[in-house]
Amino acid sequence: MNVDGRPYRTIWLKEDDDSIVQIIDQRHLPHQFVIEELNTVDEVAQAIRDMHVRGAGLIGATAGYGMYIAALHAPHATFMQALAAAGEQLKATRPTAVNLAWAVDRQLTAIQAANGDIEDKIQTAREMAQTIADEDAEYCRRIGEHGVARIEEISQRKNGDVVNILTHCNAGWLAFVDYGSATAPMYAAHNKGIPIHVWVDETRPRNQGARLTAWELGQHGISHTVIVDNVGGYLMQHGQVDMVIVGSDRTTYTGDVGNKIGTYLKALAAHDNGVPFYTALPSSTFDWQMRDGVKEVPIEQRNGVEVSTIQGYHEGKIKQVLLTPENSPVANYAFDVTPARLVTGLITERGICAASEEGVFGLYPEKKGEV
Amino acid sequence: MNVDGRPYRTIWLKEDDDSIVQIIDQRHLPHQFVIEELNTVDEVAQAIRDMHVRGAGLIGATAGYGMYIAALHAPHATFMQALAAAGEQLKATRPTAVNLAWAVDRQLTAIQAANGDIEDKIQTAREMAQTIADEDAEYCRRIGEHGVARIEEISQRKNGDVVNILTHCNAGWLAFVDYGSATAPMYAAHNKGIPIHVWVDETRPRNQGARLTAWELGQHGISHTVIVDNVGGYLMQHGQVDMVIVGSDRTTYTGDVGNKIGTYLKALAAHDNGVPFYTALPSSTFDWQMRDGVKEVPIEQRNGVEVSTIQGYHEGKIKQVLLTPENSPVANYAFDVTPARLVTGLITERGICAASEEGVFGLYPEKKGEV
Repeated sequence: MNVDGRPYRTIWLKEDDDSIVQIIDQRHLPHQFVIEELNTVDEVAQAIRDMHVRGAGLIGATAGYGMYIAALHAPHATFMQALAAAGEQLKATRPTAVNLAWAVDRQLTAIQAANGDIEDKIQTAREMAQTIADEDAEYCRRIGEHGVARIEEISQRKNGDVVNILTHCNAGWLAFVDYGSATAPMYAAHNKGIPIHVWVDETRPRNQGARLTAWELGQHGISHTVIVDNVGGYLMQHGQVDMVIVGSDRTTYTGDVGNKIGTYLKALAAHDNGVPFYTALPSSTFDWQMRDGVKEVPIEQRNGVEVSTIQGYHEGKIKQVLLTPENSPVANYAFDVTPARLVTGLITERGICAASEEGVFGLYPEKKGEV
Repeated sequence: MNVDGRPYRTIWLKEDDDSIVQIIDQRHLPHQFVIEELNTVDEVAQAIRDMHVRGAGLIGATAGYGMYIAALHAPHATFMQALAAAGEQLKATRPTAVNLAWAVDRQLTAIQAANGDIEDKIQTAREMAQTIADEDAEYCRRIGEHGVARIEEISQRKNGDVVNILTHCNAGWLAFVDYGSATAPMYAAHNKGIPIHVWVDETRPRNQGARLTAWELGQHGISHTVIVDNVGGYLMQHGQVDMVIVGSDRTTYTGDVGNKIGTYLKALAAHDNGVPFYTALPSSTFDWQMRDGVKEVPIEQRNGVEVSTIQGYHEGKIKQVLLTPENSPVANYAFDVTPARLVTGLITERGICAASEEGVFGLYPEKKGEV
């Protein structure tokens, strides 16, 4: 999407030197727009581990490009061993990110299978990195195409009045290669000229909404307002939200939605006020094994320092300030699960379905055997 | 309650010079414990306006002491005119705080009615300031006595296991003269040796939970954990909250609870998970005119800078850091209303009642004529 009027992806090969990968270093957003060059597997690993890049789709794409960089620099004599080692190194950076391992393994399989000499294998690795990134963008684009229909319906019901959409966290293009999941229908609506306005939850503790979603919507010219996480219920009580669209970190095949902590509270408020609540997700986010999301989705407890402190901009620098009493304990649960009964629909790259076993298998019948 | 092992109120007359009022300057909490001396009406007005003190009960008590300070320094020739002017000055500091006007008017009536010379009137003003403060503390103490019974019931049902209580914002002793409203049952439980643990919502945007509630509970030795506002739903889904107790800024006689923004979301989660949800309030918080809280309670929209920035401690100083993109609009709704249907009970100085017209008039039958 656009940054300062110019279209960007979150990751790409440098225009005049395709041995270098470029990313937006997201740690500096929204205060500074920094493009970083990644020249080695070590640099790629560090960018993933230290969250220069984040989000399921983008982590997968970065690992894909990382394997291409590995292929470029691997000694010819021990080519496949070096690649396997690079894969292990990349997989270890964020062990719970399923897209990461998936992208690494997809590269290893493709490179292994490539005929010809080392140059051919490097060429294969480069093409596969592009394919992984392109697929990610294409799936998100399709999510946008399907989701925008629901926005259009509301717009028509409101006789063209602004459609107010609430979102939580960042399931935007910054979390993928382009378009995003929850944001894809918003960008599609914007491009179609449907007037929308987005309420952006700041999303404590890491404030991905205030830092990333607000920035990317603003850069693309989409009307939005940042609110604290406490406000959504009030807005829904007073008719100021027409629909909620969030992303997901893991959705069960029964429609329970694991997502950033606090999503469940917004779903309760949407339900209490008759506001449709959608989750947008590429099908890679489905867990085909898990039946009861509330009971089974493992919830990461992260470092308490994310709660006791916060990062902000002060006198030209990003600073970490203390919020709590020095001796007060803190807890930091990173995700919660919204039961399917509170979810109006799932927006996927294949279309929109009910948040239920029947709905999900209606779109993905080939997965029925896997359960 | 205790600070560093020593009992404090939030406001008092200086021990060796009762012409001086002392307060805890709450702007520095939780990072620094600063006691401020107020010598003049101007200083009292500034302390209220700039929120060195805050909270309905404490604002009222501070205005009461302010009128005593005014009486001390008023010229004898124009005594009552000077007091009336001081009253106007104090009332103008936080125009929506009903306790403020109430305390000023109570003082003016008492001073006017006092027989004798100016010295007698000053004596009356000092006694009335003490009475206003003592009554505030006594009402909170009684709220604690009534509320602790519900904690005790849960404790017994859990065979003495720790009772987990969630609270939002600061309805603690720092918002009153002593004990607090929502915290009074917690302090009472602690004093009775009932093991409790308190989940403290940080309460964005002003973080009164992380800054004030965590500090006062910690100072009094009550086990607690600070969480971001997004976490309560997850905790309730997983049986980690036995009850919720919050305060109120305005409660209708029908039981709708106006309170800090985000309260409604926690009430929804409590209801969805069968967790009892209580509001603790002195009866001065009831609105005897208002029937439909969600429709009628006016919701203050505060300065957006409270959302776009946050205050924290960094290298020995309290600093304000920017959280959002420079050009992103923000909105700052300060309160929401929890409908009575989600409220298990109201804990008042007279006892606990259902959140309904019938329940409220059962405790306050004399108010029935006012509606």
